[in-house]
Amino acid sequence: MKRIYLVILFLLTYFNISHAQTTTQKSTIIDSVFVCPPCGSCDYQTFDKAGKCPMCGMTLIRMSLNDFKKQLNLKPVTVCFYIQDGVELLDFAGPMEVFTTAGFHVVTVSKTKTELHTNGLSFIPQYSIKDAPKADVLVVFGGSFAETVADTAVISWIRAQRSTASYFLSVCTGAYILGKAGILDNMTATTYFLQIDNLQKTLPNTKVLANTRFVDNGNVITTAGISAGIDGALYLVEKLRGRDYAKSIAQTIEYDKWIPDQGLVLNKGN
Amino acid sequence: MKRIYLVILFLLTYFNISHAQTTTQKSTIIDSVFVCPPCGSCDYQTFDKAGKCPMCGMTLIRMSLNDFKKQLNLKPVTVCFYIQDGVELLDFAGPMEVFTTAGFHVVTVSKTKTELHTNGLSFIPQYSIKDAPKADVLVVFGGSFAETVADTAVISWIRAQRSTASYFLSVCTGAYILGKAGILDNMTATTYFLQIDNLQKTLPNTKVLANTRFVDNGNVITTAGISAGIDGALYLVEKLRGRDYAKSIAQTIEYDKWIPDQGLVLNKGN
Repeated sequence: MKRIYLVILFLLTYFNISHAQTTTQKSTIIDSVFVCPPCGSCDYQTFDKAGKCPMCGMTLIRMSLNDFKKQLNLKPVTVCFYIQDGVELLDFAGPMEVFTTAGFHVVTVSKTKTELHTNGLSFIPQYSIKDAPKADVLVVFGGSFAETVADTAVISWIRAQRSTASYFLSVCTGAYILGKAGILDNMTATTYFLQIDNLQKTLPNTKVLANTRFVDNGNVITTAGISAGIDGALYLVEKLRGRDYAKSIAQTIEYDKWIPDQGLVLNKGN
Repeated sequence: MKRIYLVILFLLTYFNISHAQTTTQKSTIIDSVFVCPPCGSCDYQTFDKAGKCPMCGMTLIRMSLNDFKKQLNLKPVTVCFYIQDGVELLDFAGPMEVFTTAGFHVVTVSKTKTELHTNGLSFIPQYSIKDAPKADVLVVFGGSFAETVADTAVISWIRAQRSTASYFLSVCTGAYILGKAGILDNMTATTYFLQIDNLQKTLPNTKVLANTRFVDNGNVITTAGISAGIDGALYLVEKLRGRDYAKSIAQTIEYDKWIPDQGLVLNKGN
């Protein structure tokens, strides 16, 4: 009988401790990653443990995080942030912090190069839709979005990115912009929690999910509102560079609260 | 004996479910708060439950969140963000999102009104230290901080805010700026996780803590790095407006990960 009480005591202690750890204890600092030796196809991806590369079969090697970051500079990822006037500040500032910390090349694009206003800050975008560089990743955001959705020139430009961009990411009500451009057709998506029903009515060919931090359809990712953009951006870093590298970025910005799998991932093989 | 196994099963299920809830389930939307009827001294504070106001003794009433926000407009809080060139983007963008959402009046101040650069964004501050409005709250940030710490005109201005500002908040290595101005003397503080030891050496009269999301000394709050500024700002909203109101702001920006007490609070009565 005593043993049973010891088991109960152990279980209570174990679950209390493991829960407490999620809120108070620092995880180990990541200062090196497993990578594939240069082979031309998977040199910019990290892996969680030693072994063979699942893509090319070569034996993985351990590399310092600093050296891996230098290697990444050889093949920068260009991330275009399409930003409209009245954008919500943290919608784009969170992902901008994540992507710049990850060494991605982030540029701001708007319809024209006139000043943009957000809550507390005004700035001029670097590019207009007429001279924006080729995007590897296109990201759109919420806040005031109605004018953008109604602007055929902007929506045509967003739609045209499909021919060159490898990934699309929307934060918050930025989902309306991707939706209007047809990029969410036959996809599963999410948006700001107060806009779930309305987005579903607006996009009958899209399945819109509530209570979901982000949804990945392979190369189209949508996130919930405002601060959820941080999670979506870290998730995209993980897709492009591996989980350990994404974890190192979360550590760098002290986003200890990041839970890598806290989202719905469809087509996991992609 | 069967009962014991049922107890074990219950405990396992209970702890698993309660842990899962922290990562997947939405909390109830806050649309009303308990407030004190107008009495002149505590009209801008919310309370978690019905009862008597602990400050003036009047019976608390329930008020819709929208009506409370209108009431707040009658007594705006001015938050001065001192921002230097090379500031870290999320250091200030996180707190700016929180404070503007809470209805506070946020202004940007720098030494002069020349353009400031951060990771991915350039902008002009609204005020210089010569014409900045009176601050109720002064906030400083990290990123490049050495020039600011060495600038006697800026440090004198920061120090002078003590005569008017009710609260000071530093995010990340912004702690060096408050420290240089003497505002952390004989206080407990924290900073960016890679700067803990160095800050301790720099400020021998301050107790610097590692692995702490924020530290509150009553009217001086310091936070860990970059994304921790969001938590520090929400905590300050809680101090000024009550926990339910701060929770409603965390919900609005979908910062579901906020844990109100995840920090060290000294002098809790203050």
